[in-house]
Amino acid sequence: MDITGADFIRGMALLGAGIAMGFGAIGPGIGEGFAAGKACEAIGRKPEEAGLLTRTMLVGQAVSESTGIYSLVVALLLMFVIK
Amino acid sequence: MDITGADFIRGMALLGAGIAMGFGAIGPGIGEGFAAGKACEAIGRKPEEAGLLTRTMLVGQAVSESTGIYSLVVALLLMFVIK
Amino acid sequence: MDITGADFIRGMALLGAGIAMGFGAIGPGIGEGFAAGKACEAIGRKPEEAGLLTRTMLVGQAVSESTGIYSLVVALLLMFVIK
Amino acid sequence: MDITGADFIRGMALLGAGIAMGFGAIGPGIGEGFAAGKACEAIGRKPEEAGLLTRTMLVGQAVSESTGIYSLVVALLLMFVIK
Amino acid sequence: MDITGADFIRGMALLGAGIAMGFGAIGPGIGEGFAAGKACEAIGRKPEEAGLLTRTMLVGQAVSESTGIYSLVVALLLMFVIK
Repeated sequence: MDITGADFIRGMALLGAGIAMGFGAIGPGIGEGFAAGKACEAIGRKPEEAGLLTRTMLVGQAVSESTGIYSLVVALLLMFVIK
Repeated sequence: MDITGADFIRGMALLGAGIAMGFGAIGPGIGEGFAAGKACEAIGRKPEEAGLLTRTMLVGQAVSESTGIYSLVVALLLMFVIK
Repeated sequence: MDITGADFIRGMALLGAGIAMGFGAIGPGIGEGFAAGKACEAIGRKPEEAGLLTRTMLVGQAVSESTGIYSLVVALLLMFVIK
Repeated sequence: MDITGADFIRGMALLGAGIAMGFGAIGPGIGEGFAAGKACEAIGRKPEEAGLLTRTMLVGQAVSESTGIYSLVVALLLMFVIK
Repeated sequence: MDITGADFIRGMALLGAGIAMGFGAIGPGIGEGFAAGKACEAIGRKPEEAGLLTRTMLVGQAVSESTGIYSLVVALLLMFVIK
């Protein structure tokens, strides 16, 4: 087997990048969809507050997006920065 | 061990195809079932809107299906296109 | 390392059987328990419809069981049929 | 690499024990917490039925604990019985 | 392959540390967010009880944090104590 140490490190880093982004996409995806669903429910009860509710939903989703962005950053670092 | 590099790549690609489709089936399956359940709940309260609710459910489920289709495409690419 | 190719295939098939049944048990287990919980909720509100609700619950659980049975079949095939 | 067959089997058994108990702790943990939460909800509505509700909660949690105990048994078998 | 036994043990310990903290962050993250969401719901219905509800939420979240702290401790032990 002629896998050098550098090859092994690079391969594991790329596998880690896939795991980071794959699992990291689960949480924000569910959480933001939940926020969107609850916003629909609330707008369905009070359509006159649609603007306020949409703003609140987007602020909350932006916070929920954070862990997804961390995952993306870690995946990009593992792919392009780590040698 | 007489595993060539091409064999290793092909084996990992097929493992990746299984992981892609296996995990990729979880999300749409739960999400579309949730949509169907809420549609039943809503039709149970307003049976006269069954047509509108079924249409809305199917539109929403089609959007939810998208990540499942991405998983299928990635799995098929890993199986039949990547060498 | 004197692992032959046939040993490797058999070992991976058995690992796959464990993964198939292990993950495959999660979905139906949650889904059928959810159905049972909602059936309890509904019977608690209308005890006189207990027979109808129990029948509906069992029909729905039978459908939910299907993916668990697929997992069992795949696991059994991986264990006893695949050589 | 001087890993004997017995070492490999023992190592995989111990890895399996960790996986068994690790994943096996997820389900009962969520399920019993859900039962506790719903019991709180019900006691909040009818505090005079706290005794009956606590008993029902504990009976239900005991059933939910069962898969966690199976996981513990499998993990202990993999650690101390399987050679 | 010139991986010594000590290298293998250290590598697996570090992989285990990543798994411990990665999976261990899922549960408390979901549970504490659920507690926060229900606290918002309750404060939205009774804003005059915001202080009591925030205290209850924080006590409950502290308990939910415990498994995350166990994961952190296990990950730190695997990284810095285990040789």
